[in-house]
Amino acid sequence: MFESAELGHRIPKETYDAEIPALREALLDAQYDLVAAKRFPVVILIAGVDGAGKSAVVSTLNEWMDPRHIQTHGFDDPTDEERQRPFMWRYWRALPPKGKVGVFDGSWYSWPMLEAGMGRIDQEHLDQDMQLVKRFEQMLTDEGALVLKFWMHLSKDVQRKRLKKLESDPATRWRVTERDWKHFKRYDRFRDVAERALRLTSTADATWIVVEATDSRYQKLTVGRLVLDRMRARLDRTAPAPAPVKAPPSIRPIDELNLIRAMDLTRRLERPDYDRQLEELQGKLALMTRDKGFRRRGAVLVFEGSDAAGKGGSIRRITQAIDARICRIIPIAAPTEEERAQPYLWRFWRHLPRRGHLAVFDRSWYGRVLVERVEGFCSEADWMRAYGEINDFEAQIAKSGAVVAKFWLAISKAEQLRRFKEREATSFKRFKITEEDWRNRRKWNAYEAAVCDMLDRTSTEIAPWTLVESEDKLHGRIKILRTLCDRIEAAL
Amino acid sequence: MFESAELGHRIPKETYDAEIPALREALLDAQYDLVAAKRFPVVILIAGVDGAGKSAVVSTLNEWMDPRHIQTHGFDDPTDEERQRPFMWRYWRALPPKGKVGVFDGSWYSWPMLEAGMGRIDQEHLDQDMQLVKRFEQMLTDEGALVLKFWMHLSKDVQRKRLKKLESDPATRWRVTERDWKHFKRYDRFRDVAERALRLTSTADATWIVVEATDSRYQKLTVGRLVLDRMRARLDRTAPAPAPVKAPPSIRPIDELNLIRAMDLTRRLERPDYDRQLEELQGKLALMTRDKGFRRRGAVLVFEGSDAAGKGGSIRRITQAIDARICRIIPIAAPTEEERAQPYLWRFWRHLPRRGHLAVFDRSWYGRVLVERVEGFCSEADWMRAYGEINDFEAQIAKSGAVVAKFWLAISKAEQLRRFKEREATSFKRFKITEEDWRNRRKWNAYEAAVCDMLDRTSTEIAPWTLVESEDKLHGRIKILRTLCDRIEAAL
Repeated sequence: MFESAELGHRIPKETYDAEIPALREALLDAQYDLVAAKRFPVVILIAGVDGAGKSAVVSTLNEWMDPRHIQTHGFDDPTDEERQRPFMWRYWRALPPKGKVGVFDGSWYSWPMLEAGMGRIDQEHLDQDMQLVKRFEQMLTDEGALVLKFWMHLSKDVQRKRLKKLESDPATRWRVTERDWKHFKRYDRFRDVAERALRLTSTADATWIVVEATDSRYQKLTVGRLVLDRMRARLDRTAPAPAPVKAPPSIRPIDELNLIRAMDLTRRLERPDYDRQLEELQGKLALMTRDKGFRRRGAVLVFEGSDAAGKGGSIRRITQAIDARICRIIPIAAPTEEERAQPYLWRFWRHLPRRGHLAVFDRSWYGRVLVERVEGFCSEADWMRAYGEINDFEAQIAKSGAVVAKFWLAISKAEQLRRFKEREATSFKRFKITEEDWRNRRKWNAYEAAVCDMLDRTSTEIAPWTLVESEDKLHGRIKILRTLCDRIEAAL
Repeated sequence: MFESAELGHRIPKETYDAEIPALREALLDAQYDLVAAKRFPVVILIAGVDGAGKSAVVSTLNEWMDPRHIQTHGFDDPTDEERQRPFMWRYWRALPPKGKVGVFDGSWYSWPMLEAGMGRIDQEHLDQDMQLVKRFEQMLTDEGALVLKFWMHLSKDVQRKRLKKLESDPATRWRVTERDWKHFKRYDRFRDVAERALRLTSTADATWIVVEATDSRYQKLTVGRLVLDRMRARLDRTAPAPAPVKAPPSIRPIDELNLIRAMDLTRRLERPDYDRQLEELQGKLALMTRDKGFRRRGAVLVFEGSDAAGKGGSIRRITQAIDARICRIIPIAAPTEEERAQPYLWRFWRHLPRRGHLAVFDRSWYGRVLVERVEGFCSEADWMRAYGEINDFEAQIAKSGAVVAKFWLAISKAEQLRRFKEREATSFKRFKITEEDWRNRRKWNAYEAAVCDMLDRTSTEIAPWTLVESEDKLHGRIKILRTLCDRIEAAL
């Protein structure tokens, strides 16, 4: 993989000097077109071996283009706010919005490759990490991002000379650390790891570009030209090619039986039983969320369900038991302007709680495969790929230690009508029924099919769905509280 | 100040139970009106002595109102991201947007009052902190926020009994810590500090409401009723009363001489001198920003100036010398939807760099007293109060260790015309001159007056303005680089 980056590529100074002015002008032009169109973001990774001039390339890009529209990120040790969330959180928060260029000096590859190179994780672990990274980048490109990944390569011999040379000059000595030499000793191992990682994550849309770093003019010119070519090509493609549908359509069971219809909506709970169990479970929840063990975990709760199924009431029964300072309810409404300039899941990532905290999503990322699917607010390809993206998202939350609990609140069509009418009859404006509610109701069957697909595709062991019979509100609330208590208890 | 909160106020259970349903309904109504109108945020501080049931009140507010539209914040030790920025950053980032209620359990008062109570800062220091807090709250109310500050009070005797009682019950024992007893020993001292702090920060728009916490029914009902009354009153006031102008209008010197006209725009620098000095100063800047001492500081740079005065070029000469990973350029354009829902300075606070990093603002918070003033985009009262708010803002940045450097780039009216025409003649779209540029130019004199006022009112010792003669670009760039180097050198 690195052979052609050890050929000793060089560019004479005259060629370089002659080419740069036009290249810079074209890069600026492309960049201003990008800013004006705000159609997609550009994500540029600058990775590679130590001493291969990565930060010089980053500086050059900032010099050649308009630095006002470039966001450059270096990633040292994560801050404590970052450590208390899933590994990828720090990268999500650094993603450039549409119209901007994000340059990543260090990235989601750095840590897994370092760990593998130092022998602290095995190959299987590396492969798993690379699969996650691959799916993350697939999501980025599916969302429209232009992803450019550069790997700066030096042969072993050149790297040794480079480190020695940097060390011998007082002006650059600070750049060579003991760690660099420690890594150099493991050059072959790191090379194997890099080769494997690059191979596993080179895809059609996010391919790795290996650049020989022996001659910095060759290196910079190669990066500059490629950035220009790829940006120009994307900018000049007026309409994005329709993404192919990546999952087979769902199959309707021929007997019309499905998970929703199989629910027993006659389940009831009498008021005295309810009162007793509510007190017991709220007390349990209060104690558990104040437990020391919980401070290392936390929870992400998702509430979805038919309109008027009782989400709000159920959520209140939970939050009543929890210290308000560690609990945040996130009602999901239309995305803001800043959220629309980012990948779909970005607006949920930004609300992920710190360790030991709870986030309660009143509606959630499942909107993509429910209302957006049924109403046609996004393309079929978009909601089809959402299942996989969502599973990855939830797996990462669970891996970070948080409990992921998802509730689907179901009522019958007749009961919904009764509640709609009841709400319309009450004077409190907070219970006002909107036209949207009636619209959704008219598409009951389409929603039912979407819900069944969602349950089939996103109920996982680490983030299972709980189907809640909510025809009787008391039964529904207690089932939710009990499930949540069980899940947290099992985690502590 | 606390006498009437030691009278033993009590509410019988029957009275309480009878009143709550109507109160909750009215609170919900007010809250939904708030959400629908999105006119202002509500900031509720719950402060007071240990054991006075602050978190119970916070929970009750969440229970009585719709918790989906309440953001509750507890403030433990600051995270490292918070510690690396000015003290108030963590509170700015927690401010609720218009339409939401923010409940603060712990606030900008907690730390100064604790420090003063423990005798770690003296009265003068406390007073200074309270003046800052007062101006911060003045800004909040000037921006339209409804600020409600509750102080939960217990007499010494009742506090002792309360702590003992909590301690004797296994279910609540965890709530009483050694620290609580340590504070109790200093009850009188804390009482004095609280009295002083409350007195200094009780203003017409953000007055303290002292609530006796002996009886929790009395306490909750008092808070609930007051929240309702104040919200209702604000919601029902259709048009906000025009804020009075708080600063006298500026005085035009009768001889027409001012800071801008006194500048010597004939200053020039020859190319060879420029090249030599550029290299020298960029090298110096590169070394200084890589210095260990700089990692504890950082810098915030502000670029303002006439259109076409050369801000972009000057900024690039700086960023070229600095590691792109620690430097961020923030081009200031129109505020986003999320930014418009917050106080004016919020969108600048959110971009404040961590310690050891640089933020370069290409245009800045001074827009308020320049373009917004001249074009009438905000009221006179708004831009008048901005001077003080800005001085506070910059003082806080400087106090956190960062260097604050502000540059005004000046050119003559004739030179601007020449550059406009030159730009119009070139084909690069990036140099396109907009109608806005011509509009600003037609108001040259009004801008000049605004600039002079700005310089007079916001050039401070810790955050001085540097006037840059930019008629000759080379001279301008070098002056900026040299000033910046001097400022950073002096700080290290």
